[in-house]
Amino acid sequence: MTFDPATLKYDAAGLIPAIAQDHATGEVLMMAWMNSDSVARTLDTGRVTYWSRSRQAFWIKGETSGHIQTLVEARIDCDRDCLLLLVEQSGAACHTNRRTCFYTALRDGKEVELMAPED
Amino acid sequence: MTFDPATLKYDAAGLIPAIAQDHATGEVLMMAWMNSDSVARTLDTGRVTYWSRSRQAFWIKGETSGHIQTLVEARIDCDRDCLLLLVEQSGAACHTNRRTCFYTALRDGKEVELMAPED
Repeated sequence: MTFDPATLKYDAAGLIPAIAQDHATGEVLMMAWMNSDSVARTLDTGRVTYWSRSRQAFWIKGETSGHIQTLVEARIDCDRDCLLLLVEQSGAACHTNRRTCFYTALRDGKEVELMAPED
Repeated sequence: MTFDPATLKYDAAGLIPAIAQDHATGEVLMMAWMNSDSVARTLDTGRVTYWSRSRQAFWIKGETSGHIQTLVEARIDCDRDCLLLLVEQSGAACHTNRRTCFYTALRDGKEVELMAPED
């Protein structure tokens, strides 16, 4: 039987969190949301496609910036309410032009910026 | 200034998603939720403490199973609405007794189980 995105568990807004991880380095790049249709599109096209909660529209990652995410493998968690996407990330994943969105660390109770925006 | 958990962005239920990643291997272990108090407890104690949405109670990871998560470093994403926790995971992170909750892969449109429960 072919996988059906409707078998995942979505929240009250019809969304499921999706974590993008660099398939080669293991770096966690970002977390965003998908609805059932964006899961289907991502699997069909191989281009990671989130659902933008602010715009209420599909968000084909990198469509504007060119920093696309190509799906290598999708994984589902035990509760079927979270996705882990192993991706090939072109350029920066973060809209601030950093490789990852998680560029701020807490060290000794202070926020430390781990990387500057890329050129 | 010391970091204040109130500066993070929580959803309408007062929660923020937290991704736990093995600090040594980079493996993504699980995703669960925290409220402001569980963020504070995690930082204060070094024991990762989620908020259980089903029980509406603090969930000190491993308190029952012994499979504790020790915080190595917390990271905050660009939007301040998601946390990445680098942890030292004792035993299985998943309640199914697997190392990670993300043990199901989608390959060729089928679900494939990547690992069996540990002994």
